[in-house]
This record gives sequence, C-alpha cells and structure tokens, in this order.
Amino acid sequence: MDVRRRVGLNVKRFRQEKGLSQEALAFEAKLHRTYISGVERGVRNPTIVVLEGIASALAVPAAKLLE
Amino acid sequence: MDVRRRVGLNVKRFRQEKGLSQEALAFEAKLHRTYISGVERGVRNPTIVVLEGIASALAVPAAKLLE
Repeated sequence: MDVRRRVGLNVKRFRQEKGLSQEALAFEAKLHRTYISGVERGVRNPTIVVLEGIASALAVPAAKLLE
Repeated sequence: MDVRRRVGLNVKRFRQEKGLSQEALAFEAKLHRTYISGVERGVRNPTIVVLEGIASALAVPAAKLLE
C-alpha cells in the first residue's frame, strides 16, 4: 500500500481511538483541518517534521504512523 | 531529539550496516548523493514518500527510520 495511504489510515485510526475530531487534531498539531483531512485520505505527502507534529498531537510515536 | 536528526542517524546506521556508500544508497533510492548526505546530517526534511524510497533502498521498514 502507498505510504501516504498507510499513514492516512493510521492517523485516522489513532485520532478516532482518542475521540478527537479532525478539527481538534488540526488545532493540536497547528495545521488546517483540510490538511488533516488530506493526510487521512492519503492525498497529502507530509514531511517528517509535519508527521512528528501530528504524532505528538496524537500522543503516539511517529514510527507508529508509518507501520 | 529533532526528528530530522533521528532519521539521519538511523539512515546512516542502516546504510553502514549494509556496507553501502552514500553514492550507492543515493543511486538505489533515485536521489542525489548530496541529498542523502543532507538527510544523514539532519538538515533535510524529507517527505514520507522520499523516506519510503530510502527505506526501500535500505531494505528496512520505513517506520524503523523514525524510531
């Protein structure tokens, strides 16, 4: 599976497990809600610095988002 | 530690474990040697697609580069 799709599914799963809306996650990660939406749909190609910010907002190690 | 520095140290370690030069890794990953050098020094901020390409060239899961 494409790495963007894989990361997207992981972000969505962790976000939902934590009961966060896309908007709440976006706020925590200092990103726009539509950017989070694009990441979850696998259409964005975030850098590792952005990925780390999302991971931090989800309180999971960044590596977990790539598994 | 900054995620760029962490990824850089991991890339360097796996590359050396496999006995690859920066040039050989760059060729495998279809990147420039100076780009690989920048990643290893933590001054580049690769996207997840580029990270996956480097991981694939090193024959390690991309998640390992973020640990």
